[in-house]
Amino acid sequence: MEKVKIGVLKCGNIGTAPLFEFLLDELADRKDIIVRCVATGSKMVAEDVKDALSSILKFDPNLLIFISPNPAVQGPAKAREILLKNKIPIMIISDATGKRLKEEFEKLGIGYIIVMGDPLIGARREFLDPTEMAIFNSDIIKVLAITGVYKIIFQEIDRLIHGYKADLNPKLPTLIIDADNIRDQSDFKNPYAKAKAMAAYEMLKSVDKINNRACFTEKVKEKYISLVACAHEIARMAARLAEEAREIEKREDTLVRRPHSKKGKPKIKDKLMLSPTLDEKTYQKWLMTTKKETTTRD
Amino acid sequence: MEKVKIGVLKCGNIGTAPLFEFLLDELADRKDIIVRCVATGSKMVAEDVKDALSSILKFDPNLLIFISPNPAVQGPAKAREILLKNKIPIMIISDATGKRLKEEFEKLGIGYIIVMGDPLIGARREFLDPTEMAIFNSDIIKVLAITGVYKIIFQEIDRLIHGYKADLNPKLPTLIIDADNIRDQSDFKNPYAKAKAMAAYEMLKSVDKINNRACFTEKVKEKYISLVACAHEIARMAARLAEEAREIEKREDTLVRRPHSKKGKPKIKDKLMLSPTLDEKTYQKWLMTTKKETTTRD
Amino acid sequence: MEKVKIGVLKCGNIGTAPLFEFLLDELADRKDIIVRCVATGSKMVAEDVKDALSSILKFDPNLLIFISPNPAVQGPAKAREILLKNKIPIMIISDATGKRLKEEFEKLGIGYIIVMGDPLIGARREFLDPTEMAIFNSDIIKVLAITGVYKIIFQEIDRLIHGYKADLNPKLPTLIIDADNIRDQSDFKNPYAKAKAMAAYEMLKSVDKINNRACFTEKVKEKYISLVACAHEIARMAARLAEEAREIEKREDTLVRRPHSKKGKPKIKDKLMLSPTLDEKTYQKWLMTTKKETTTRD
Amino acid sequence: MEKVKIGVLKCGNIGTAPLFEFLLDELADRKDIIVRCVATGSKMVAEDVKDALSSILKFDPNLLIFISPNPAVQGPAKAREILLKNKIPIMIISDATGKRLKEEFEKLGIGYIIVMGDPLIGARREFLDPTEMAIFNSDIIKVLAITGVYKIIFQEIDRLIHGYKADLNPKLPTLIIDADNIRDQSDFKNPYAKAKAMAAYEMLKSVDKINNRACFTEKVKEKYISLVACAHEIARMAARLAEEAREIEKREDTLVRRPHSKKGKPKIKDKLMLSPTLDEKTYQKWLMTTKKETTTRD
Amino acid sequence: MEKVKIGVLKCGNIGTAPLFEFLLDELADRKDIIVRCVATGSKMVAEDVKDALSSILKFDPNLLIFISPNPAVQGPAKAREILLKNKIPIMIISDATGKRLKEEFEKLGIGYIIVMGDPLIGARREFLDPTEMAIFNSDIIKVLAITGVYKIIFQEIDRLIHGYKADLNPKLPTLIIDADNIRDQSDFKNPYAKAKAMAAYEMLKSVDKINNRACFTEKVKEKYISLVACAHEIARMAARLAEEAREIEKREDTLVRRPHSKKGKPKIKDKLMLSPTLDEKTYQKWLMTTKKETTTRD
Amino acid sequence: MEKVKIGVLKCGNIGTAPLFEFLLDELADRKDIIVRCVATGSKMVAEDVKDALSSILKFDPNLLIFISPNPAVQGPAKAREILLKNKIPIMIISDATGKRLKEEFEKLGIGYIIVMGDPLIGARREFLDPTEMAIFNSDIIKVLAITGVYKIIFQEIDRLIHGYKADLNPKLPTLIIDADNIRDQSDFKNPYAKAKAMAAYEMLKSVDKINNRACFTEKVKEKYISLVACAHEIARMAARLAEEAREIEKREDTLVRRPHSKKGKPKIKDKLMLSPTLDEKTYQKWLMTTKKETTTRD
Repeated sequence: MEKVKIGVLKCGNIGTAPLFEFLLDELADRKDIIVRCVATGSKMVAEDVKDALSSILKFDPNLLIFISPNPAVQGPAKAREILLKNKIPIMIISDATGKRLKEEFEKLGIGYIIVMGDPLIGARREFLDPTEMAIFNSDIIKVLAITGVYKIIFQEIDRLIHGYKADLNPKLPTLIIDADNIRDQSDFKNPYAKAKAMAAYEMLKSVDKINNRACFTEKVKEKYISLVACAHEIARMAARLAEEAREIEKREDTLVRRPHSKKGKPKIKDKLMLSPTLDEKTYQKWLMTTKKETTTRD
Repeated sequence: MEKVKIGVLKCGNIGTAPLFEFLLDELADRKDIIVRCVATGSKMVAEDVKDALSSILKFDPNLLIFISPNPAVQGPAKAREILLKNKIPIMIISDATGKRLKEEFEKLGIGYIIVMGDPLIGARREFLDPTEMAIFNSDIIKVLAITGVYKIIFQEIDRLIHGYKADLNPKLPTLIIDADNIRDQSDFKNPYAKAKAMAAYEMLKSVDKINNRACFTEKVKEKYISLVACAHEIARMAARLAEEAREIEKREDTLVRRPHSKKGKPKIKDKLMLSPTLDEKTYQKWLMTTKKETTTRD
Repeated sequence: MEKVKIGVLKCGNIGTAPLFEFLLDELADRKDIIVRCVATGSKMVAEDVKDALSSILKFDPNLLIFISPNPAVQGPAKAREILLKNKIPIMIISDATGKRLKEEFEKLGIGYIIVMGDPLIGARREFLDPTEMAIFNSDIIKVLAITGVYKIIFQEIDRLIHGYKADLNPKLPTLIIDADNIRDQSDFKNPYAKAKAMAAYEMLKSVDKINNRACFTEKVKEKYISLVACAHEIARMAARLAEEAREIEKREDTLVRRPHSKKGKPKIKDKLMLSPTLDEKTYQKWLMTTKKETTTRD
Repeated sequence: MEKVKIGVLKCGNIGTAPLFEFLLDELADRKDIIVRCVATGSKMVAEDVKDALSSILKFDPNLLIFISPNPAVQGPAKAREILLKNKIPIMIISDATGKRLKEEFEKLGIGYIIVMGDPLIGARREFLDPTEMAIFNSDIIKVLAITGVYKIIFQEIDRLIHGYKADLNPKLPTLIIDADNIRDQSDFKNPYAKAKAMAAYEMLKSVDKINNRACFTEKVKEKYISLVACAHEIARMAARLAEEAREIEKREDTLVRRPHSKKGKPKIKDKLMLSPTLDEKTYQKWLMTTKKETTTRD
Repeated sequence: MEKVKIGVLKCGNIGTAPLFEFLLDELADRKDIIVRCVATGSKMVAEDVKDALSSILKFDPNLLIFISPNPAVQGPAKAREILLKNKIPIMIISDATGKRLKEEFEKLGIGYIIVMGDPLIGARREFLDPTEMAIFNSDIIKVLAITGVYKIIFQEIDRLIHGYKADLNPKLPTLIIDADNIRDQSDFKNPYAKAKAMAAYEMLKSVDKINNRACFTEKVKEKYISLVACAHEIARMAARLAEEAREIEKREDTLVRRPHSKKGKPKIKDKLMLSPTLDEKTYQKWLMTTKKETTTRD
Repeated sequence: MEKVKIGVLKCGNIGTAPLFEFLLDELADRKDIIVRCVATGSKMVAEDVKDALSSILKFDPNLLIFISPNPAVQGPAKAREILLKNKIPIMIISDATGKRLKEEFEKLGIGYIIVMGDPLIGARREFLDPTEMAIFNSDIIKVLAITGVYKIIFQEIDRLIHGYKADLNPKLPTLIIDADNIRDQSDFKNPYAKAKAMAAYEMLKSVDKINNRACFTEKVKEKYISLVACAHEIARMAARLAEEAREIEKREDTLVRRPHSKKGKPKIKDKLMLSPTLDEKTYQKWLMTTKKETTTRD
């Protein structure tokens, strides 16, 4: 396969959704993939999702990525139902609510990446307007980017892409991203920077908990307004702490960057003034794993 | 018309794109619109755009919003060509590069919103990887949200939606958003907060200028790396200054919030602990203007 | 009773302990109380506690306040056992671990204040040295002070003191302090300041959770060091956010201050340059409640 | 001697008092000491002190540490008088006011540690309430911890403890801690971090000076309120600057940590992810010095 | 007199010197004064000063302002000697070192403004280079501007100017500016902003003390480098705290501005968007005082 | 020539003016130069300039440095006219407005240093008062110092001085300082610190552009007040970002310092605790270049 077609279906919003497709091709010059996204906006109604799904299926993707919060609700459930009738490899990216579907996904052969620290927004009309919504997303994006969560995700997709390009049958991810993954998989060189990144991520988990209470449990206005306002303040501090972590790595000129090559291969660098080089190790590992998996699967 | 169908076509990325559809329905409970987005990812190749376009047209939208940087290049141009054959009202949201097409848009009856302070990213492989890309977008989103640029945009779309719902023929926007608009249209009560917001916006314009030089003029690695790194530092400071502006309004409890009602009507509030009320004035103005326009147009 | 003798027994450390006695007499000129503290340092061994207890009992206090983390362990349990043989009113101040003893306390007629956001320290030898311990306590103290947790506590004690002085039999507190109490009982005038304070408190709860995992669950050095470092970073950010909250009130000159009068009566003020006046309302309420309680008790 | 019994008598409050006992056993697992504290709260009345003293003497300590501000006033003076009748080694920890008693202490064979940068609080009823008191202490604790003042103090006590355990007769400290000690004895690797720490300490000295004027010289409300408010602002900035110093060391992963071993021996480490090792050098030096002293004393 | 000629002689540098002449005519359009400055750079050699003095005397000023640190040294002393032979009103602006000459100045009829918080720079070759010098001055300028010290100074000069213009004989200033003057004469509306400003000023006094020790007492490199580095850190924090004070006033839109009118009259305003109006009260007070003084003088 | 006489004529104010003479002799002990400045304050009237010029010419300088904004206006033009009649080497330091005179300067043999990032102040009476003027200058000074612009300037003057001392005929500078010079000539070791410095400088250019519009184009009060306020906010952020850059170098202890020796020779150092050493390389280069220039010129 020369060019891999990536279909993305988004319904509703989570922190990994808004910039997802750009994570795969940040320089807009990658020759080995074609990306198409269809989205239903903030709604997750079954009918809309169904319609959007039929639209993305017409694109005839080699991989279909389904991004939504709360995959247990009607819309996403409907989508899975339809998707399973197709032969396309499917993977789901979701938030903490998706964790309880883990086993179902596995049984159905659906890949998944569950981001435990991708919090619910403070969706109360007294508080959330489009501006507050955007600011909250800005903060979440910053934390997920800096902590390396986005990196873990795009590397998983890239692993699949390179598998498909080599006509292999790579194993779909079954990944639950928590603070441990930041500890083990992020690129921080300084251990305090890493601790700050983990802290930022843990703070997002706290945001999620508070917003869930504010959106679904508290009924009295005085209570839930305070709670959503409080949760968004934590998100703001998390973004700031994440930024502190990144600034440390700048200060040492040890900040790792991982641009894609034009051919989509993983490149890597640290010192700012140097050019990136091929991350051959990662690349070969991907192909290796894929091969082994392939053998065991067919 | 009971429900307005909004079709969004995104190709490439600008600061208004990632969260656009959520600006219209931040609480995910609006009953008067159906939103569908189709996107080509970071690429803007004519063929992709054409294909994505045909997909969004199948959605049969009442309004088609086309979001892309640099609308003069092949992909967006192709899109316009096709779109004009349809009878659907079209509007374009773009960055400063779109300004020179202003007259063409007007001649063709295409609405437009040009965001002068939505800057080019520092797209150099030595610098830009998915993580840096996301952080930059996070900063731009924060500035565009806080300065009220997003507000200006979603209000324009809402004006159209309410016109369509009243079976009127509202005038498409012809808007170039610069710092003056922040001065005149943002919701800041404190004049220093407003000055800070304007400053953040002007800083983004400076980011754009530097990144353009770094991406298109400088050929020597040592030069363009420094420039893109420098531009992203300015973006970071702009986000911080914008945040300062918002914090001032929090400190006075004068922060204006403008959530949508379930029926999509504009609501407004300031004091945090109060409930939003209908922004009847804005709403009537929209319908008024629309009626007048209607008369003069047909 | 003219002078109330307050006996304080501290074993181990929690965030309310180090400055507890100074909360009651911050200006060191209060004429209506005599305070004596006996402490066992960071240890909570039964034998030490027993010995310390006998020392504080010799002081013949009118009220005995027992402050310790984790009151279920041997030392504090022993203390309770001995104390119950005396007729002295006893109250316990403890952290979240104390919550499960709530009913036991109530059954035994022991008053209690459980501070849910008073977190466990990151007690791992690779991380915690005396300096880190002190810094952590500094951060916790700042949050507990600014959020008004200390205020809630010293007012409860003052209520008892004034009851005893009026020869009444005031009801011992049965209080679990969570973010809700900050919402309802803190003195913030600005709702965003209050939200920030609540956020700071919630962050401490997150610190507690992480440190518990790091101290009692994780066995691998690489894991628990990251966790305790991460938890202390959150504590640092919580202190900073709490400070933001207080700065807002300074900015409006609405910061409430509640010094004690020389006679121990509650005074209150806001504008910085004004003198405090008697908080007659609070004071009368204390005596009122006390009287009613008295009637119903005997 | 297997276990050394440390008796601590606190009357009034200074920045070294609230966490003093935890500095000796931060992990609460030290096997070689038993600590007992008796405190009179914020008051320093002779009678109270006398009574507290008798209580701590019953503990039969091997070393008695007396912590108070202003040791020249009646209460502490009384305490010294009584103590000198006992044979217990006595040392005093105090603030700048204690400096003038230096010679008296030496004559009487009392050890002392005078912390020149431990400032008087802004004790004016229009300003100081329990919350402000706690915040101020939080700031002072942060500065004294980060600058290494606490380290100097606990090492002196540890030196004595290890001397007693080896049945030697270690010389009591005669130490006046000023910015020079931070320069010479703190663990900063980065000279700018050290300069920042020294600056924070000097700022505390300035706080002391202003608060002394505000509390004892100025009689007009308008004057002394401004002064105490001004002094506490300096304390806040000092804490922030100290934090900057510590962050620098984190950024280099050169932060030195000095936990106690279970046997109370000094351990040391820098790199965060490494384990502490025995600080044999310091330890041997303590025993050495002690021996020499012993010889010359008896 | 229609135009007042202001001669300024600067030798050496203090914080009030670099921008002094611009304080009198910040908009460069004042019609009632002509300003001429002659300066000897950082040197204060008698010969240079003498020569510079003869140059400024040729300008035939109506008022001669002599700005220098340490007016007791040879150069400034020589200048005074020469100046006293002329009939021109003379005033001296200097730093804390000038205070001890106060009586001499008064005896000789020389006006003076002594700025107690204008600190000595850390003039040690291991530390001070032109860049550090400029940064330090930037910090001092910020503090002296924001705290209102510059305002006190330029108002004194303006008082003289308006006296001369009215052909009166205004009394030369005899002013020692300390933190009390900031309390009484600055324009802060918020008392915490004022306390922060006072704190910033007090911190500069601390800078002065430390730099004096570092430059004149300490002989060992290790000692004086630490001290000057420490002093400049305090100056940086003072500038930051002063900025905090100003930001508070911005936040309330209560920041007072005092531009000169074209005719040199004092104007005043607060709300940012309003125009300044004549500060008639101040202006009349100046003329009043001047008249009274005139009567009593001749 | 043993001592070089430097004459400085300042009319009006730019960011390089207020501290210019101290850049040459920051320690006030340089034996090889005599500096004299004459200044006309903020005014640039031809008559004043002429008079000031005659005063500085009496000093008989070996080099005359003329510092002013906007050298095309009447005053500076007059000055040049007169100066060219003398044989003294002349150089001009100016802001971006001076760039268009570049060729004229070269034709006339006048040296020049044009600082592109030295911005116009927000000179509108509703906004600019002496305090705001001073704060703005403080921010500009900080940026120009930290970014190394001042270093570039004083090294050029030092090059001339050492040429004159060696009785050579050094070439006058023809220098336009833009962000590129910061990239190539500043002393930053960390590339991110350098990028931040460049960003701060670019922000000043943006300040200049906005203030020019506010001062010369906008006529409506509501517009120009917002603009000048906005511009000064950017200046404040630029200063803060520059400070960030310097702090990075402190954190690595790589901050380069370049004090003058007593003989005026260039010294250099980085590690804070070390002594500076002669920068022989720079020094020899200066003499070398000068010699070559000399040969080719005469």
